[in-house]
Amino acid sequence: MRNIHVIGIGAGDPDQLTLQAVRALRSTDVFFVLDKGEAKSDLVRLRRDLLDAHVPQGTYRVVEARDPERDRAAGGDAYSPAVGDWRGARAGIYARLIAEELGENGRGAFLVWGDPALYDSTIGILDEILDGGSVRFEYDVVPGISSVSALAARHRTGLNRVGRPVQITTGRRLAEGFPEGVDDVVVMLDAQQAFRTYADEDIDIYWGAYLGTPDEILVSGPIAEAAPRIERLRAQARERNGWIMDTYLLRRNP
Amino acid sequence: MRNIHVIGIGAGDPDQLTLQAVRALRSTDVFFVLDKGEAKSDLVRLRRDLLDAHVPQGTYRVVEARDPERDRAAGGDAYSPAVGDWRGARAGIYARLIAEELGENGRGAFLVWGDPALYDSTIGILDEILDGGSVRFEYDVVPGISSVSALAARHRTGLNRVGRPVQITTGRRLAEGFPEGVDDVVVMLDAQQAFRTYADEDIDIYWGAYLGTPDEILVSGPIAEAAPRIERLRAQARERNGWIMDTYLLRRNP
Ligand SMILES: C[S@@+](CC[C@H](N)C(=O)[O-])C[C@H]1O[C@@H](n2cnc3c(N)ncnc32)[C@H](O)[C@@H]1O
Ligand SMILES: C[S@@+](CC[C@H](N)C(=O)[O-])C[C@H]1O[C@@H](n2cnc3c(N)ncnc32)[C@H](O)[C@@H]1O
Repeated sequence: MRNIHVIGIGAGDPDQLTLQAVRALRSTDVFFVLDKGEAKSDLVRLRRDLLDAHVPQGTYRVVEARDPERDRAAGGDAYSPAVGDWRGARAGIYARLIAEELGENGRGAFLVWGDPALYDSTIGILDEILDGGSVRFEYDVVPGISSVSALAARHRTGLNRVGRPVQITTGRRLAEGFPEGVDDVVVMLDAQQAFRTYADEDIDIYWGAYLGTPDEILVSGPIAEAAPRIERLRAQARERNGWIMDTYLLRRNP
Repeated sequence: MRNIHVIGIGAGDPDQLTLQAVRALRSTDVFFVLDKGEAKSDLVRLRRDLLDAHVPQGTYRVVEARDPERDRAAGGDAYSPAVGDWRGARAGIYARLIAEELGENGRGAFLVWGDPALYDSTIGILDEILDGGSVRFEYDVVPGISSVSALAARHRTGLNRVGRPVQITTGRRLAEGFPEGVDDVVVMLDAQQAFRTYADEDIDIYWGAYLGTPDEILVSGPIAEAAPRIERLRAQARERNGWIMDTYLLRRNP
């Protein structure tokens, strides 16, 4: 039976691989890498560097494919359907790769940024392929250090306060209002800098970009002071690198 | 200057250490281990096994101390103050250990279960000691695979649904009501099995106990069917081992 690892590789620091992930890398014949286009090709390179560092050359192949375009323009309620279409297209590509590139007993792997459990579609896509029945395989998931854990560690802070909840959400959601029932909120996927909406409130922000990489930037403090600084640093870094990945924790003082 | 690592060691599987954590273990002279009493001494043993596996003998010392009793009887509003007293007592013990057991340039470490960012007091206590000013040191935090990541990986599920938030909370909070504004909720520290309150609702549960250890138990499915099974398995396992650690994801169908 074909076997596939979904391997969380951490959010930028190659040292944040787990021993389990290294073992899984070394037991893989074929790595599937989907390129999102020129902007984020740094991330594809990072994956290749990981393999060079941890797996003996000549023991594996890398198969690259171009990721289907996602309809990012579709806003509001259209978000989920657009993602659905895109997921379907991706499932088609993955299914073909698995069927064509992996022998009957081949061992393949997808390298997933951070932790596969957070805002990543790989697991959902593999389940969709299995439901479709076009190709059969077994798969397992190797957890990884998420950008959320990396953020908290670099700021030396907990995510929750004692006995209290923490919510993880998206920039899009945060722009619609501060989540109910929580004062500690981690925000991912925020291209619009939704934190600016709350610059007048009694909130501390812990922000991090390119966490774990040589380009890492950290800013923390009362949001009124930190927000303009983050905006400036973010624009400069994005200009310099051509892309940015950032995450932050908002901690409201009740 | 004294230097201290707060090292996330994963939630049970020794292979879920990161390479960064292994490096930090190997650069440590003195490990501080707080024993919570007989019930959870398995966990202290697990920490010792980690050291045996990854750090050459004779390069480090282990200093053990007894954890102060926490007033678990104090319920409801008393929760935070009780935790505060306990944290103060702990800070006193940690400060003394650091001052007495670590030389001026000594390198110490606390091994933290899972990820130090989730429901763990070590970072808060070190900050409290530094604020108090009785002993000086620098410290850094090494993120770890949390029981939340481990749970999701073993069930091969994401924590969030596409574009949607996820909340992490405690059993105590869940008993007060289903969190507002979210349909995906991870519950930790639930001695009272608060999930039973929701057995009549259209919710799927993904439950895991002793994740990553040889005793691991996984149950998932519609809560109406799964809840009685979990209750039974949980009681048996707790009886057998003398203690239990479990976590679960509730996924409500909107
Ligand atoms: C598609 S999600 C994937 C998250 C990933 N699975 C994880 O566990 O971190 C991408 C988002 O993760 C966050 N992110 C990932 N890596 C990051 C990094 N190195 N620094 C800061 N944020 C990061 C950003 O919020 C980004 O928009
Ligand atoms: C004091 S909190 C510490 C959490 C830890 N810092 C983490 O990241 O997982 C203890 C709670 O974590 C969860 N937990 C920790 N280890 C676990 C394991 N191996 N299996 C299941 N749940 C676990 C349980 O909900 C337990 O009540």
